[in-house]
Amino acid sequence: MKHASTPLSEGSAVTVCEVGPRDGFQSEKTFIPTARKIEIVDAMFAAGVRNVQVTSFVSPRAVPQLSDATEVIAGIRRPAGSVVSALIPNLKGAERAAAAGVDAVHTVVSASATHNLKNVNRSVDQSLIEFEVVTALMHREGIAVEGGIATAFGCPFEGVVPPERVAQIARRYQELGAKRVSLGDTTGMATPASVRAAIRAIRAEAPEVEICLHFHNTRGVGLACVMTGLAEGVSYYDASIGGLGGCPFAAGATGNICTEDLVYLLQESGFETGIDLEGITDVARMTQDTLGRDLPGQILKAGPRLRKFDPQMTATARG
Amino acid sequence: MKHASTPLSEGSAVTVCEVGPRDGFQSEKTFIPTARKIEIVDAMFAAGVRNVQVTSFVSPRAVPQLSDATEVIAGIRRPAGSVVSALIPNLKGAERAAAAGVDAVHTVVSASATHNLKNVNRSVDQSLIEFEVVTALMHREGIAVEGGIATAFGCPFEGVVPPERVAQIARRYQELGAKRVSLGDTTGMATPASVRAAIRAIRAEAPEVEICLHFHNTRGVGLACVMTGLAEGVSYYDASIGGLGGCPFAAGATGNICTEDLVYLLQESGFETGIDLEGITDVARMTQDTLGRDLPGQILKAGPRLRKFDPQMTATARG
Repeated sequence: MKHASTPLSEGSAVTVCEVGPRDGFQSEKTFIPTARKIEIVDAMFAAGVRNVQVTSFVSPRAVPQLSDATEVIAGIRRPAGSVVSALIPNLKGAERAAAAGVDAVHTVVSASATHNLKNVNRSVDQSLIEFEVVTALMHREGIAVEGGIATAFGCPFEGVVPPERVAQIARRYQELGAKRVSLGDTTGMATPASVRAAIRAIRAEAPEVEICLHFHNTRGVGLACVMTGLAEGVSYYDASIGGLGGCPFAAGATGNICTEDLVYLLQESGFETGIDLEGITDVARMTQDTLGRDLPGQILKAGPRLRKFDPQMTATARG
Repeated sequence: MKHASTPLSEGSAVTVCEVGPRDGFQSEKTFIPTARKIEIVDAMFAAGVRNVQVTSFVSPRAVPQLSDATEVIAGIRRPAGSVVSALIPNLKGAERAAAAGVDAVHTVVSASATHNLKNVNRSVDQSLIEFEVVTALMHREGIAVEGGIATAFGCPFEGVVPPERVAQIARRYQELGAKRVSLGDTTGMATPASVRAAIRAIRAEAPEVEICLHFHNTRGVGLACVMTGLAEGVSYYDASIGGLGGCPFAAGATGNICTEDLVYLLQESGFETGIDLEGITDVARMTQDTLGRDLPGQILKAGPRLRKFDPQMTATARG
């Protein structure tokens, strides 16, 4: 199937993949108890989420917050139609993920050479050669591969990342048999213009691969970038419950775009997500209670749009 | 001139009207000293802002935070091309604003009858009859009138507000000679779909009136709504420095969309605002220091997009 850059029509299905348990929890200072992680993921499923990036299989020394990856996957109750995925940086991670019983792995290579070296200590080519082996192994095991491209919209070390470089990696992933590539806005540099350019470059270079957009709201324009994605026909988005997550390059900045705010935007725009807004907002509240601090999500604070108030309330000449 | 719903082309001028000194400061618990207000507005001008809603002429009992309206306007240094406006709820306010020397007044009537009664203690028709007198007086004095329509995208008491009702008020404003109407997202209920519907209804009913969009980011979709505005050809937006402001109906929710985040979005999308992003971010920092608490703006926390970091920094397998 070829994908084209035409606006997604109203009523279309849009997939929201919950990445909070991975991208969010890895940024927390404290280790969230395994049983609580399992409760939170189960609550996400109960709210109608079907795609969850549950954890990552990276070095437990590098990311101790997710050292219980195998236990979390073993503990959750996976409903019919659910897709449980994990991030993996290399073959070793892929083997652990497969043994743990994931439905999909999310590989990660950076479009920026400097960032890839820093992130996984090898060159972009070395990563891609390793993913050739990974993909063959995963496909033998019936596990789907989502090809992650980090720093797809800019690199904190190199600055601008040319869309052509992103498209070349997407094409390589397509050749390896990945059904989807995920464009990671690793440090929140995505803008509507850079998103449009990356999508169009991929559609020209690798038209058969589905695109997932993974935005961080670091500079406040995460949902504006989703609007561009929808206008370009992209129907798959990552988001984090409550807007969890951080960025090592911007202290105090928010993390991923917020799941329940995204679900609200999509629902109000006439798209089908299968996710219950009230249910997922409850999960955000549960996560917030677990972490003991306010999360950046706005629906969490403001409540539903059509909640009505008693006219006896005060409101004076405020415009 | 007739306005049409065609996307704004890249390179177009977009006006960002700063409303923080009015919509933001009125929500603060403390009275900001008049001299500090003047410094902040002057700094906005220095950063290239030319349209500022500086204050409001409402009852000082109802909004004591802005009881120094006349002094603030007398104190600021207005550069060539600047437009200093103030919100006015009625004729009395308009007379005070004219005496203070504003360039423009922003009237306010609610599209929702219940909200108008609560907000200014009169019916929508009574407000519009009063604005007929106001507009005639202002035009004699050479003062522009921007017709504000509060609760344009929904009402906290009545729920959904039909776009036709918004368009009827816009038409009435057009007949009175207002050059612009401002659609107020008073309690943060705007969504891309409701924004599109309101714009198109106004274009059909009152095609000669310019549209200003005034969004609150209460539910996180403020800048997504700006994307819809741009796609519908709207080139005038209100915003508050640092994302100042609150909402009496959503405790803890953010206020207006944030000026510097909006300027970043517009600049990165190829529009001309005349505003220096670094300069306006400095004003946000100054405002934050004045208030002594973190403001919701994201650029304020994350800094410029292309700020580069030393590759010696740590970053480990985070995707």
